[in-house]
Amino acid sequence: MKIGVLGTGVVGQTIGSKLVQLGHEVMLGSREPANPRAVAWANKENLNKEATQKRALVGTFANAAEFGEIIFNCTLGSASLTALKQAGAENLKGKILLDLSNPIDYSTEAWNLTVSNYDSLGEQIQRTFPETRVVKTLNTMNCEVMVDPNKLSEKTDVFLSGNDSDAKAVVRGLLRDWFGWRSIIDLGDITTSRSVEMFIPLWRSLRLAISSHYFNIKVVGI
Amino acid sequence: MKIGVLGTGVVGQTIGSKLVQLGHEVMLGSREPANPRAVAWANKENLNKEATQKRALVGTFANAAEFGEIIFNCTLGSASLTALKQAGAENLKGKILLDLSNPIDYSTEAWNLTVSNYDSLGEQIQRTFPETRVVKTLNTMNCEVMVDPNKLSEKTDVFLSGNDSDAKAVVRGLLRDWFGWRSIIDLGDITTSRSVEMFIPLWRSLRLAISSHYFNIKVVGI
Repeated sequence: MKIGVLGTGVVGQTIGSKLVQLGHEVMLGSREPANPRAVAWANKENLNKEATQKRALVGTFANAAEFGEIIFNCTLGSASLTALKQAGAENLKGKILLDLSNPIDYSTEAWNLTVSNYDSLGEQIQRTFPETRVVKTLNTMNCEVMVDPNKLSEKTDVFLSGNDSDAKAVVRGLLRDWFGWRSIIDLGDITTSRSVEMFIPLWRSLRLAISSHYFNIKVVGI
Repeated sequence: MKIGVLGTGVVGQTIGSKLVQLGHEVMLGSREPANPRAVAWANKENLNKEATQKRALVGTFANAAEFGEIIFNCTLGSASLTALKQAGAENLKGKILLDLSNPIDYSTEAWNLTVSNYDSLGEQIQRTFPETRVVKTLNTMNCEVMVDPNKLSEKTDVFLSGNDSDAKAVVRGLLRDWFGWRSIIDLGDITTSRSVEMFIPLWRSLRLAISSHYFNIKVVGI
């Protein structure tokens, strides 16, 4: 499949690498057509590959959004709406957008959220791009866990939020087949993005308390 | 031990009943000296007991705070500061206050929080009562789980937030000995109340998604 990954930070690179290794063609998008981090990533992924095997590509946000049949938003939350506008509503129209971002203000020691409680970044993105099928997911864990949940000692949970049931069903299948997720909980419509984004302060407290970013939560019933 | 429980709702009654059954003397406090719900609770707990075995007591917030060597805040978050002021700073001075409340605005369909992100109810209580040793805990689950975590199919986690390490050590022991908690994570100072209070929207989404309130989360690492 052709996949557009917006964002060249550690999340975008980790998702991109996993998808390339699975055999997909991935274009990493950023503000510039040849972002040095993205170029370095592509060179690493394409190293020693035949020309036809070079599946790691680089472009602008618009290039990546146009290229992808499905899009991952891996930009920083503070930059997501700007990045998606640069990607272009036309290029995102009708497509599934997996929104992995969190609206964290990294300039604050406490990692305050830039939007919460009465709204969320997931909702803002869905409102701004009404013809895109936004599915908020994977934002509740470190990116190493996103692409390899079975390295954890037990099966844990990942969540889905979105207005389009068909899109959520597709994303459920992708999370299972690409990354190995076995327990996927549909929280409801896109307003439940608030729930998973507001989990971030607890995630951060746990990261500090247990001195590890390699963890996730499991919902346990009777 | 003599324990003051502020709040006569389902949380206060469940905590109070568990503590009475463990052999403690518990005074359930409310605005009125003889709140009908509290009186009914005490009558139920004291039924068929000898006079010396009648350990369920009823009083005002101030009565319960004065009575208790340790205090549980089980009032609604929207009423907590008012209730604690009625309890009286002098009656709470030097004591450990387990704060179980959540700042939920139940008048909103989405259960918006009345304080979050830049502050929390736990912090507000600690600031208002600087001589009280506030430990935020148990607010991340239904009260049936609070007092009986081992009914769940697996060991799950409960959190502690507070500025007083000695108080947190005492609470850790109480949670273990009274309720059976085996995995207790110290998140840090009282500012981490934000983390556990902001978890409530996810708790609510999960409650709706899995159609049960009888669950908790478990932190899973490698």
